Amino acid sequence: MPPLPFEPKDPAYAERVRASFGRQAAMDTIGASLQAVEPGRVVIELPYAPHITQQHGFVHGGIVAAALDSACGYAASTLMPAEAGVLTIEFKVNLMAPAQGQRFRMVGEVVKPGRTISVTEAKAYAVDDAGREKLVASMHATMMVIIGRDDVRH
Amino acid sequence: MPPLPFEPKDPAYAERVRASFGRQAAMDTIGASLQAVEPGRVVIELPYAPHITQQHGFVHGGIVAAALDSACGYAASTLMPAEAGVLTIEFKVNLMAPAQGQRFRMVGEVVKPGRTISVTEAKAYAVDDAGREKLVASMHATMMVIIGRDDVRH
Amino acid sequence: MPPLPFEPKDPAYAERVRASFGRQAAMDTIGASLQAVEPGRVVIELPYAPHITQQHGFVHGGIVAAALDSACGYAASTLMPAEAGVLTIEFKVNLMAPAQGQRFRMVGEVVKPGRTISVTEAKAYAVDDAGREKLVASMHATMMVIIGRDDVRH
Amino acid sequence: MPPLPFEPKDPAYAERVRASFGRQAAMDTIGASLQAVEPGRVVIELPYAPHITQQHGFVHGGIVAAALDSACGYAASTLMPAEAGVLTIEFKVNLMAPAQGQRFRMVGEVVKPGRTISVTEAKAYAVDDAGREKLVASMHATMMVIIGRDDVRH
Repeated sequence: MPPLPFEPKDPAYAERVRASFGRQAAMDTIGASLQAVEPGRVVIELPYAPHITQQHGFVHGGIVAAALDSACGYAASTLMPAEAGVLTIEFKVNLMAPAQGQRFRMVGEVVKPGRTISVTEAKAYAVDDAGREKLVASMHATMMVIIGRDDVRH
Repeated sequence: MPPLPFEPKDPAYAERVRASFGRQAAMDTIGASLQAVEPGRVVIELPYAPHITQQHGFVHGGIVAAALDSACGYAASTLMPAEAGVLTIEFKVNLMAPAQGQRFRMVGEVVKPGRTISVTEAKAYAVDDAGREKLVASMHATMMVIIGRDDVRH
Repeated sequence: MPPLPFEPKDPAYAERVRASFGRQAAMDTIGASLQAVEPGRVVIELPYAPHITQQHGFVHGGIVAAALDSACGYAASTLMPAEAGVLTIEFKVNLMAPAQGQRFRMVGEVVKPGRTISVTEAKAYAVDDAGREKLVASMHATMMVIIGRDDVRH
Repeated sequence: MPPLPFEPKDPAYAERVRASFGRQAAMDTIGASLQAVEPGRVVIELPYAPHITQQHGFVHGGIVAAALDSACGYAASTLMPAEAGVLTIEFKVNLMAPAQGQRFRMVGEVVKPGRTISVTEAKAYAVDDAGREKLVASMHATMMVIIGRDDVRH
């Protein structure tokens, strides 16, 4: 993946994002981990596990959405000032194939950063035992930049 | 809530939906339970718990989405023939307020049932200690009816 | 339809909305007119006409979306201060049936008003010669309140 | 733009798409024209014109959506069998900047083709007098393949 054309405002963006992700208990519960943090892009990995499945044994679409939401939110966060928080206003998910695989790679990217609103997107790829990737879901999300609220920082 | 104007095709729809929900390990992992099953409507309850939160201590928006997705999918399922399965094609979530509360009530309803495609919606209400409800999120989801695939039933 | 539980901040909201709608040349081009303006709700009517159709002779889904977008935006506008403008951040449309009919009735409503963000929804009903209504489309839209920009007022 | 990795099933896909676009009276009404048709991709151009504006003089977001919807639908159509029709199930639009410009270029592409469902996306770029482009809107749309219905062909 080529670098995105974005300049971070906060030189410590990567540490800030990693620390915040570490406080998302929900990500720990589903087994998701942060693999990469760049200006405007974040990669999250989610291994297949029986405790996150739906009734057919695929990973639950809502769990895929949870990881994609974190990927979008933190992609937006990499471009924000140090004191800003981010809240998801809305997202849409298209589930294109059952979430079957050994693990899943979620790549979140900023499409359009903004002072108040950032538009982001993410794709989820299922990875099989041989390392082959298949697109299984996409997200398109609107993030709101929050400044000056102590309960919504980072 | 008044009954919805729908006739189930499968008289055993409630048992079928309850059994299928019981096989969604992801719902058990996040702590969600099925409270009501009617023709075209399903109610899911999700208690607040630290293991499903994001970095500010609110319930993670993606976890709210996961419960809403199950509410939409099973609402659609109540109106389907006994042998049909249901897959989510896409959903959109609007997060209107931080998911703070003692517990959350998700109400999923069918807007337009169809032979191939069913359109559904769901609302998530935060409930505080005094039982007061506040709308915190909505979902609008498109479900696909799957017939004749052994790996996607119920 | 029962009144919505909203108090307008601007007593002249209806005249303001009607004047603004009158400046939307696009609504005139497609033939849409404003039928009702209440606190938190707006009704737009769109007669069937050959110049707004797609290749099968139904009204083009994008034209239905344009009228629904105006219904959502003006529903939000009814609850805003006199000096505020409104911009659509995003919307999603579900097209549930072909837009066939003698005319179409779009009802836009505010789901959650806010100081910065308002969440709205709208439904499009096809009306036949006998006056029977059928739900053909729904929209769920996020509106942004704009204050202090001279190029975005009303 | 590099070619997309898709093989058309219908060798006459371009003529078929052009003929169908020519029957969309709504596109003629708003002034949109078909600029390019390739396997999995379609480009539509929309000149700025006063009759498609909203109250601030920008192109109405719903009109942008109408052109994007056609771009998505015809992108899907390029990969379909000759006898198939296409209907939009749903789309989401993010409006990232006011639609100001001399003209607008809409690029619709297939993300995932399918026998029954095709997932597509489109971007709208405003082009100024100097030919500079700016991303102003994106669409993510789900299309349904219709076979065997005489009223929904091409």
